Amino acid sequence: MSSISIATASEVFDLLRDDLALVEKEFSRQSESPVQVVTDIANYLMSGGGKRIRPMLLLLGARSLGCKTDARIRMGAVVEMLHTATLVHDDIIDEASTRRGRPSSNTTWGNSKCVLAGDWLYMEAFQTALNERNFRVLDLLISLTQQMVEGELLQMEKLGHLINEEEYFDLIYRKTACLFKVSMQLGAAISAGNTGNSADTISATPGEPLTAEEQSLGEYGRNLGLAFQIIDDMLDLTANDNVLGKPAASDLREGKATLAVIHALERGTGADREAIRTVLADRSFEHVTHQQILEILLRHGSLAYAMDTACAYAEAARQSIADLPDGEYKRALLWVPGFVTSRDR
Amino acid sequence: MSSISIATASEVFDLLRDDLALVEKEFSRQSESPVQVVTDIANYLMSGGGKRIRPMLLLLGARSLGCKTDARIRMGAVVEMLHTATLVHDDIIDEASTRRGRPSSNTTWGNSKCVLAGDWLYMEAFQTALNERNFRVLDLLISLTQQMVEGELLQMEKLGHLINEEEYFDLIYRKTACLFKVSMQLGAAISAGNTGNSADTISATPGEPLTAEEQSLGEYGRNLGLAFQIIDDMLDLTANDNVLGKPAASDLREGKATLAVIHALERGTGADREAIRTVLADRSFEHVTHQQILEILLRHGSLAYAMDTACAYAEAARQSIADLPDGEYKRALLWVPGFVTSRDR
Repeated sequence: MSSISIATASEVFDLLRDDLALVEKEFSRQSESPVQVVTDIANYLMSGGGKRIRPMLLLLGARSLGCKTDARIRMGAVVEMLHTATLVHDDIIDEASTRRGRPSSNTTWGNSKCVLAGDWLYMEAFQTALNERNFRVLDLLISLTQQMVEGELLQMEKLGHLINEEEYFDLIYRKTACLFKVSMQLGAAISAGNTGNSADTISATPGEPLTAEEQSLGEYGRNLGLAFQIIDDMLDLTANDNVLGKPAASDLREGKATLAVIHALERGTGADREAIRTVLADRSFEHVTHQQILEILLRHGSLAYAMDTACAYAEAARQSIADLPDGEYKRALLWVPGFVTSRDR
Repeated sequence: MSSISIATASEVFDLLRDDLALVEKEFSRQSESPVQVVTDIANYLMSGGGKRIRPMLLLLGARSLGCKTDARIRMGAVVEMLHTATLVHDDIIDEASTRRGRPSSNTTWGNSKCVLAGDWLYMEAFQTALNERNFRVLDLLISLTQQMVEGELLQMEKLGHLINEEEYFDLIYRKTACLFKVSMQLGAAISAGNTGNSADTISATPGEPLTAEEQSLGEYGRNLGLAFQIIDDMLDLTANDNVLGKPAASDLREGKATLAVIHALERGTGADREAIRTVLADRSFEHVTHQQILEILLRHGSLAYAMDTACAYAEAARQSIADLPDGEYKRALLWVPGFVTSRDR
C-alpha cells in the first residue's frame, strides 16, 4: 500500500461500518432523557439524514493513531450531539420552517422547548465527555462551543451587510471548521491516553502545547471544514429547492453573503454590486431575481472561484497529514476531502 | 461565641463585603466577551438588583471549611453566571416583558441573541470552572445544569394543569434548591483542595461518595433553597406590582400552581377548585379575579400553610449544619434562613 494511495468510498464505509453503527447506538443511549420531548427532538434531528461526518472524522483520527478503546464511540456520539444541539438553537435563530426537507424542530415543538432541549443536549454531551476524566477533551469541547456560539452572534450582527473574505473565513471557521478540527483533535486526545502517556493527558494544564499528531490532525480538520462549508454555501446558491430540502439561495434570503457573492461584489460593475446589495438588504428576491444573481456570479467566474478555493482547502487537508504513519486510516482520511468537494447536497 | 448564636445582618455583610466585591469584579471579567452583545446582556442582568445569594452561599460554605484560595471568588462568580444564563433562557420561555421592574432581556435584544447569549454564559461558567482542574467541581456543575433544564421542561409540560405537592417540590428543587445545594457543595469541593487532599478531589471518579462536609452543606443548601422558593412563590401571590417589578400573581397568569394554591385545591369546596382551575386554564384573571383567589387562599389558611412550610425548611437548614465547627461563618449560615423567610421581595 503506497503512502499516497487513496481509499475508495466502499473501503472507507467498510472500515467504519461497525464503529458508525456503535456511534448511532451510543447517540440514542445518550439522548434518552427523563424528559420525553428532549429524546423526541434528538431522535427527530438524528433521523433527518445527516452525514455523520463529524463522528466519522473523530473515528478516523483516533483509529489512525491506534485508538482501540470505546472512548472513540462515546466521543463520536458526543460530537454529533454537540452538532445537534447547535442545530436546535440555530433553528430558533434562523426562524427556518424547514431543515433537510422536513419541518424544523422549532416549527414542530416551539421556541421554548427547543431552547431547553438544545441546552439539555449540550449538557449531555459535556456529561459524557466529563466521564472520560480527561481535561484535554474538556478544554477542546468547551472552547469549541464558545467559539461556535460567538460565531453565530457575529453572523447575526453581519446579516444584511456586505462582508469581506476575511470576515467570511472567520465565520465559516467558527460555524463548521472549528468542530471538524476539534473532532480530529479529540481523536488524538483520546488516543494519547492509550499510549502509556495517560497521566500527562489527564492532568493537562490549560494552554499546554499540542502534540504533533493533534496539530496535524487539527489542521486537516480545519482545512476540510473550510472546504466543506464553501461547498455548502455554493450548493445553497446553485441547487434547486428539491435537492437541498430548503428554499434555493436561502443564505441570500437571510441576508448572508457567501464566498462567490463576496467575489462578485469585489469584481462586479456598479450595477452588479447594487443588485447584490439590494437582495441582502431586502432578504428576498422581490426586486432582483435569483436568476439575475446567478448570472452576475457566472459572468465574474465567482462560482468557479469558490469551487477552486474549496478544492485548494481540500488539497491542503490532504497535505496536513502527510507525516501521519501510512495505513488504511490515513488512506481513508485522504479520501474524505474529495468526497466533500464532489457532493451535490 | 456560642455554637447556637446567630449573626446579625450587618455582621454577615461585614464578613463577606470584600469577597462579594471581588466576586462582582470577577463576574465582570468573566462576562467580557469578544462579542459585545453578550457583555451587554450579562451586565444588564447583573445590574438588575439580584441578591447575590448564590455566591454568598458558596463563600460561606467555603470559608466555613477554611478555604483561603481565590477559587472561592472565581466559583462565586461562576454560580452567579450560571444563574444569569438560566435567566436569559427563561426570559425567552416565559415570554415575560419585564424582570425585576425593567424590560426583560428578550424584550430588549430579541429571542435569537438571547438564545446565544445564554449559551455563551453557560460555556463561560464551565470554562472558568474547568480551569480549576477539579473533576468534582465539574461533576457538580454539569449535573446541576442538566437537572435545572429538565425542571424547566417538566414545568412547561405542567403549565395550566393541577399538580400535587410532590410534583411542586420536585419542580422547586430543580428550579432553585438544586443550585443552592450545589453552591454549598462547591464551597466544600474547592476547600477539600486546600487541605492537602487535593489529589483525591482532582481525580475524583464519577459517583464517588460525598464527604461529611459536602453532605451537610448540601443539605443546608437544599433546605434553604426550598424555603427561598416557597417564599418567592408566596410573594408572587400576595405582593402588588410595584414591589416585585412584575405583574401580581404572574405564576397564575402563566398557569403555574404553587404551594398555597395546591393546598387550597386539596381542601377547597367544589366552587373553590373550579375557580382555581379556571385561572390556571385561562392563564388570566378574566373570569375569576385575583382578589377571589386570595380570598380562597385566606379562607383555607393556605398562605399560612405555605409560610409555615417555608419556616420548617429554614429550620431544617439550620439543623443541617449542627455538626459544623463553630465560628463566625457558621453563625452567618445560621442567619441566612431567617433572612430568606422574612424578606418581602
